Amino acid sequence: MSILSINCGSSSLKYQLYDWDAQKVLANGLIDRIGLPDSNIVHKHNDQKIARKDKCADHRTAINLVLAFLLQEAKVIHSLQDIEGVGHRIVHGGVRFSASALVDDAVLAEIKANEDLAPLHTPPNVVGIESAREVMPDTPQVVIFDTAFHQTMPEHAYAYALNYELAQKYKIRKYGFHGSSHRYVSERTAVLLDNKPGWKAIIVHVGNGSSLSAVKDGKCLDTSMGLTPLAGVIMGTRAGDLDPAIVQFLVSKTGETVDRIMSRLNKESGMLGISGFSDQRDILAGAAKGDARCQLALRMQAYSVKKYIGAYLAALNGADALIFTAGIGENSPDFRQAVCADMEALGLKLDDAKNQEHSGAERLVSSPSSKIKVYVVPTNEEFIIARDVIEIVRG
Amino acid sequence: MSILSINCGSSSLKYQLYDWDAQKVLANGLIDRIGLPDSNIVHKHNDQKIARKDKCADHRTAINLVLAFLLQEAKVIHSLQDIEGVGHRIVHGGVRFSASALVDDAVLAEIKANEDLAPLHTPPNVVGIESAREVMPDTPQVVIFDTAFHQTMPEHAYAYALNYELAQKYKIRKYGFHGSSHRYVSERTAVLLDNKPGWKAIIVHVGNGSSLSAVKDGKCLDTSMGLTPLAGVIMGTRAGDLDPAIVQFLVSKTGETVDRIMSRLNKESGMLGISGFSDQRDILAGAAKGDARCQLALRMQAYSVKKYIGAYLAALNGADALIFTAGIGENSPDFRQAVCADMEALGLKLDDAKNQEHSGAERLVSSPSSKIKVYVVPTNEEFIIARDVIEIVRG
Repeated sequence: MSILSINCGSSSLKYQLYDWDAQKVLANGLIDRIGLPDSNIVHKHNDQKIARKDKCADHRTAINLVLAFLLQEAKVIHSLQDIEGVGHRIVHGGVRFSASALVDDAVLAEIKANEDLAPLHTPPNVVGIESAREVMPDTPQVVIFDTAFHQTMPEHAYAYALNYELAQKYKIRKYGFHGSSHRYVSERTAVLLDNKPGWKAIIVHVGNGSSLSAVKDGKCLDTSMGLTPLAGVIMGTRAGDLDPAIVQFLVSKTGETVDRIMSRLNKESGMLGISGFSDQRDILAGAAKGDARCQLALRMQAYSVKKYIGAYLAALNGADALIFTAGIGENSPDFRQAVCADMEALGLKLDDAKNQEHSGAERLVSSPSSKIKVYVVPTNEEFIIARDVIEIVRG
Repeated sequence: MSILSINCGSSSLKYQLYDWDAQKVLANGLIDRIGLPDSNIVHKHNDQKIARKDKCADHRTAINLVLAFLLQEAKVIHSLQDIEGVGHRIVHGGVRFSASALVDDAVLAEIKANEDLAPLHTPPNVVGIESAREVMPDTPQVVIFDTAFHQTMPEHAYAYALNYELAQKYKIRKYGFHGSSHRYVSERTAVLLDNKPGWKAIIVHVGNGSSLSAVKDGKCLDTSMGLTPLAGVIMGTRAGDLDPAIVQFLVSKTGETVDRIMSRLNKESGMLGISGFSDQRDILAGAAKGDARCQLALRMQAYSVKKYIGAYLAALNGADALIFTAGIGENSPDFRQAVCADMEALGLKLDDAKNQEHSGAERLVSSPSSKIKVYVVPTNEEFIIARDVIEIVRG
């Protein structure tokens, strides 16, 4: 049986069809520019990429286009009954959702009630659910939250030092994101550490968006993203942690609105802002050619991750493992080397040869002398989504 | 010979008269509500406190009132010639000042040119200098900057991940504050560590305002405050680090201006915001009585300092010493205990009995088994100011 996962943005829909029994992706794709006359449609199936332009008026149409492709064009499924459930990736579950849930009217209402915590993401997420319910009324719909894994944080880790009533009134606290990835990697870490009781790990998810988590016995105790995905380490286009006074300073200097400044901090900052490039490969190439700003961006990126690792070593009182995951974490030996350089005093030492090896497998990359084991674990959010759908649908 | 140090706020003037040869404070005091009909005037001299209300129209009048007290009332000096120099504490030296400087017209102009980096503090600082030059035209005036000690930070530590040109244009970077305190404690740490080459230390300055610094061989490599003193660890009334998106979120939720939100973050947040009290003693008393918000505030405060210590251990690749200073750092064994608890894996262990001892002296409070030595060092910013004045005036 298959699981269809859906991730709706304001004018986009990403999907993936996952074969649970074979544990593999059957097809995936992206429709964007939804609502415009020339939407882009990309399907990937059997190592083939099919890209075309078509009219796609809304998310409901997009889901119908996906199903038409899967059923009629690629024939990876033969009827809608082959889809055991649909998993929707939802950015924000607020404090209400610490686990995935079967969609019913009450769950949908609670997702909508959290809309103000992620006003750009929740409405299209909701449209995705509503459209899928219309198009596939007999298929169970499950919601999987980016924030759920981090709901185990203790209050002293998730609370901000704001006026207490104000923070309560508007639910301002650290939520954390990338939860499915941190959860997957945490589960794999437990296995890699032989389920040693009390195991402690720091997970470094660095891709275009980036976040770290401090995990003990599979429970998240802290994470670097905050109320929103802007906080934490330096990312592709997001600034990460900043003196919050910089927002006011920029508003007063540029005369721009707060919303425009936030857009600058989310979309024009980070590695892009420092170096002019948002793709790590371009920045590595630039740095190799001697570009000072690319070199600075790499130093800043590694330094910001390094400091979070130190902070979480203090939070956890040491760790058994440090795990690199996601695009850059899995694929850039240079990044891992820069982060782990000069950390011997904290019990961290890479094996340079192992770190350089290219592999898509889970692997140990630390030196035998390293007190903290360093692993690369390819993340697999699709597995988490599919498994949650299966578990919830099958009960 | 004596040194008069002056610290001007928008409607206040703090002063201290320091006897350089005897290395002691001869008198100090505060005039506030300057410009209002009933200014408060407080002088301390010979263990006596003299408090009165008087009319004090401006900072020039305030300096005259101070001199009248010192010359005629307390008779701690006999003529203005007894004052070898005046030291002005200046909040922001921008990138221009990495050390104290003798005031001349050019220096004054450069301080004014940095005004936009500290728009609330620089104008009264400048009024203080100008008034002192008028009242004491024959006495050398020296400026001592809160930011100067931190100017040795490398670019990857002081730069923010903003658009590079924007950051350059508006000089947006981490500056750091409390420089005279960090510098004093750093110098004492060098002595305590027998000037071991390459010594590394983390200085924890926690008072009403709080900041940490990572110091190697007496040079600051990182510090927790940022463009402004809002950033870093949780303080008495300042929030410290926050997801910068919270500023926008609060503006949109409350309908208040950005400036009002910043005032909330600076003056109504931190320990006060969480617990309802800004004085650490009230919070400790509340926590002892079982007040959950006081207990939360203390856990959050310790956790925020603990994470910075970990971050700086990573930045420095270990440290020889951790030093507690300033009001809370020096005087609260509970605070030090909470920060250092469960840090053995990082080589940090307090001696509980030594930590509990009350003393105004420099002292070791770590256990013999602690890899990192933990000291309490009473800070002495007045010494740094007086010494800088002496060195600059005597050449």
